[in-house]
Amino acid sequence: MQGRTHNCGQLRLANVGEEVKLVGWYENLRKVSKNLGFLILRDFYGTTQIVVETEEIMEQLSSINYESTIEIIGTVRERSSKNANLPTGEIEVVPSKLTVLGKCRYNELPFQINHSKEADENVRLKYRYLDLRNPQVKSKIVLRSKVVADLRASMIGHDFMEITTPILTCSSPEGARDYLVPARNHPGKFYALPQAPQQFKQLLMTSGIDRYFQIAPCFRDEDARADRSPGEFYQLDMEMAFADQEDVFEILEDVLPPIFAKYGIYHEASKPPFKRIPYLEAMDKYGSDKPDLRISLIVQDATEVLAECGFGPFAGNKVKAVVAENFKGTRKQIDKMCADVEVVSGQKAYWFRLDDKGELTGGISKFVVDHKDAVVSALGLKAGDFVALSAGDLKTAQKTAGVIRKTIGASFEGYMKKDCYEFCWVVDFPMYEIGEESGELEFCHNPFSMPQGGLQALETMNPLDILAYQYDLVCNGVELSSGAVRNHDPEIMVKAFQLVGLGEEDVKAKFPAMYNAFCYGAPPHAGIAPGVDRMIMLIAGEDSIREIIPFPMNKNAQDVMMGAPATVSEKQLADVHIKIVEDKKDE
Amino acid sequence: MQGRTHNCGQLRLANVGEEVKLVGWYENLRKVSKNLGFLILRDFYGTTQIVVETEEIMEQLSSINYESTIEIIGTVRERSSKNANLPTGEIEVVPSKLTVLGKCRYNELPFQINHSKEADENVRLKYRYLDLRNPQVKSKIVLRSKVVADLRASMIGHDFMEITTPILTCSSPEGARDYLVPARNHPGKFYALPQAPQQFKQLLMTSGIDRYFQIAPCFRDEDARADRSPGEFYQLDMEMAFADQEDVFEILEDVLPPIFAKYGIYHEASKPPFKRIPYLEAMDKYGSDKPDLRISLIVQDATEVLAECGFGPFAGNKVKAVVAENFKGTRKQIDKMCADVEVVSGQKAYWFRLDDKGELTGGISKFVVDHKDAVVSALGLKAGDFVALSAGDLKTAQKTAGVIRKTIGASFEGYMKKDCYEFCWVVDFPMYEIGEESGELEFCHNPFSMPQGGLQALETMNPLDILAYQYDLVCNGVELSSGAVRNHDPEIMVKAFQLVGLGEEDVKAKFPAMYNAFCYGAPPHAGIAPGVDRMIMLIAGEDSIREIIPFPMNKNAQDVMMGAPATVSEKQLADVHIKIVEDKKDE
Repeated sequence: MQGRTHNCGQLRLANVGEEVKLVGWYENLRKVSKNLGFLILRDFYGTTQIVVETEEIMEQLSSINYESTIEIIGTVRERSSKNANLPTGEIEVVPSKLTVLGKCRYNELPFQINHSKEADENVRLKYRYLDLRNPQVKSKIVLRSKVVADLRASMIGHDFMEITTPILTCSSPEGARDYLVPARNHPGKFYALPQAPQQFKQLLMTSGIDRYFQIAPCFRDEDARADRSPGEFYQLDMEMAFADQEDVFEILEDVLPPIFAKYGIYHEASKPPFKRIPYLEAMDKYGSDKPDLRISLIVQDATEVLAECGFGPFAGNKVKAVVAENFKGTRKQIDKMCADVEVVSGQKAYWFRLDDKGELTGGISKFVVDHKDAVVSALGLKAGDFVALSAGDLKTAQKTAGVIRKTIGASFEGYMKKDCYEFCWVVDFPMYEIGEESGELEFCHNPFSMPQGGLQALETMNPLDILAYQYDLVCNGVELSSGAVRNHDPEIMVKAFQLVGLGEEDVKAKFPAMYNAFCYGAPPHAGIAPGVDRMIMLIAGEDSIREIIPFPMNKNAQDVMMGAPATVSEKQLADVHIKIVEDKKDE
Repeated sequence: MQGRTHNCGQLRLANVGEEVKLVGWYENLRKVSKNLGFLILRDFYGTTQIVVETEEIMEQLSSINYESTIEIIGTVRERSSKNANLPTGEIEVVPSKLTVLGKCRYNELPFQINHSKEADENVRLKYRYLDLRNPQVKSKIVLRSKVVADLRASMIGHDFMEITTPILTCSSPEGARDYLVPARNHPGKFYALPQAPQQFKQLLMTSGIDRYFQIAPCFRDEDARADRSPGEFYQLDMEMAFADQEDVFEILEDVLPPIFAKYGIYHEASKPPFKRIPYLEAMDKYGSDKPDLRISLIVQDATEVLAECGFGPFAGNKVKAVVAENFKGTRKQIDKMCADVEVVSGQKAYWFRLDDKGELTGGISKFVVDHKDAVVSALGLKAGDFVALSAGDLKTAQKTAGVIRKTIGASFEGYMKKDCYEFCWVVDFPMYEIGEESGELEFCHNPFSMPQGGLQALETMNPLDILAYQYDLVCNGVELSSGAVRNHDPEIMVKAFQLVGLGEEDVKAKFPAMYNAFCYGAPPHAGIAPGVDRMIMLIAGEDSIREIIPFPMNKNAQDVMMGAPATVSEKQLADVHIKIVEDKKDE
């Protein structure tokens, strides 16, 4: 099969004496003499050492460039000096025949295959087919393929059906981030690529599908970020009929941790049930709606005991404290930590500590000294504790404390369990808020989520107190997805819109097909759509999203290997009834 | 889970006496009296009979429209009159409580759910979420999901890696059927949706991936046909490195038949190895390059014995014969068959038969009578045989005979094994042909397939005699895909192009990334991409492709449910630097 008796990662001591045929890339030749050389043959599965012992084959090799594909027929022999780091390190193959299968024309490559990660990124992307020959680079793509296959298998094992939804569909109501596709048969009209299959999955629920999922391609015309490739990305999109949020949680708690633990750089992941943290508590205790639970530190309120301590920045503000027990940091490290916090949050961090004898020292300790007992009691301080502080209005103080918490966790030993995946659910997001710009009541997140308490809550409660069945899945401080119990009831939907001064017509205008469908008897339903790319980044331990995509675009939304985007012919444009608008440079 | 103790297809005699909670759609109520009625509750998994025995719940039901979603709490009871056709037919549920979960606002639906297939297609598509509630309609989508899942699992079981390739990519060299996507960041430039991931998969081979597959979305801006949905379709795209065509055959022969036999309307499928039929033999024996091997009839040549028999249409032409043994058709059926052949092929079919005594009779028998012995001997005729004939130049005679073969097979008992999937490979397609219009040497099929004999064949053989490693996979007369051993050698590629008057520049212009990649050492590779939609149609026994797609477009490339394609805002157009060209109606 495939022109070989074995692949390049397969031969072992047991094969010694066999005649084998191997195929692969000619990676390297260490020339010892005119009739002795050590050749490395590489394929998808591994590398095998080929020991050339004839002048004839050595000569043949002199006319072949590295990275050509070749076929070797030879005999397996036990190595005298074995390489324990290599699966095939106990054997070598002595060739009787070498055939070139595919010539590499070039003596020099744009970069060395096994060091491609050090090359300039645009060169790597242009020669992605060489970059991917680097086993370290390839391994991330193999990992991705395996993770996605296991996600699929697990969802199917949980009785979910994968249904592919249309890619050529409608522009969304906002439309700002839609990719447009002009329609040849309908002059002046456009398809759009879906930002997510949200409407289709809700329509599937209304169609009677019970458990839907899809590794769904999604398209959003946004600029690149470290964790966002421009253009397309994938979601593990799922939705369940007659379900509430606990049903959704139960499934993902069963599906995700085993896959993270199996393939991840960490081999430990949260066991079900994941911690559920109400949004307000998350902001209060972790200073973030995506808390990293690997960090043991908790944010405490110190407003009562410190706001009026005489330290100017605290006066009239909320004060939040992060207490690090048994703290060993140096002054230099503390300064670095404070500087880092300021870079990330734009806010200052303050601090003091209790030395080994329990004496206040450092930072703003002179302002604290008069309130020592109250502070020690309020924050539960002990000798050796370090206290970092933030101040500002409630949100600012909380968020800054959240940054302090993460920075201490990352900078000092002992506050963070590093080798694991800690999942949590952030739940009970508010349904409404007062808009910062408008000063009016606005939807906080998704207007199509179900308010807790349903119609009755909308009719009787202060809107700002209404919570939504809306939840975020967070892993190690990274938000993997928002999900919700959907509002499947047109009456509740219209009422929810009326509270922000809109009505049925606005609901209909946003999602006409979905609203129509809901009027024909919809089941309660709930779902979520964890980002596949983000999950793979966490599992692979990669900071750049381009490392986990087979053929990524560059940061400028170009595929420099294929030359996309590109100019097209006038005929192509005419066929789809559009023309190009030249940018007016003077405006 | 999901608000129920059991689903609507689950309850059995063993559950009698249990209190259960069921959720689903209120399908129907047969009202017997004011305190007795039989309600059908339907969910994804089945239906359960609910026997309402209280005036209170009967009254509650009078205000609820069919197709509302409801929750029933009640007790399982053994039915007095059981329904053996229904999995839940031995029990019924007596409700103590009924709750409405999602109201259907309408008393009348656009069509009756369980008869939706009889409704107008555009109405079905507009209310696809109601159409899909019909278990018969839903079942095809469930089937599709299962088949695709099994295809994936089987490919992974054969050590293939699924790799998703970009959807936003480059316009192809011809470009005529590409969907264009204007690029916001690159005024005047366009992405295109891939017609197939052909280049990417070949680049993956060059990248060192050994066995690739993908259930790949493909996009081709062509008008609809019965077996082709406009817009998007799916392929089981696969490619293998260091492989020849037998490697590819071996995989698909292992993957496809078990899935066809498991899910198909027929439960029998070809065993490996599938019959391999050289293209010329296929044309000769079956009058088609996609032979339906369920039909036992074979095309024979009758030119020598009949061309000059005096029957005008045969004179100077090739004559092909299809002999049907032990023929029982009536004259009326024969005339119908000949008329059908003419409709399909545009060519006449002729015939005669040997009666039970072996006497020539009917059709053109008077022209045959003087040559009877030669004809009987040449075609191996026996009493009771029916002989259908075609005439014309070689291709016309062959193709018409192919239509005759299929028409007899379909119209008369005894010549076609109906309940099975018969696969075959058509192999050895010619590399070149003389173009009908140009009169010059042209590529027959894919210019990037490997010529048999490689460079030597190109340099020494008559181009018209050169065969390509190109193959078609055919099932029951339906072409599922073309595949090929690819030409991975730039030198052979340039030579192949030179024979038709082109050169290296033309190769490069067509597929620059692939050609560049091949110059860096490519493995020999081969692949194929069977159409998923066509396979599902065969498996489901459906003639309309729209029955096997969850949300299909109509024949006019519109999604009438979502309203795609649609107009978009001027701002959206301006953002991507295009404007609409109004059609000039006077031209």
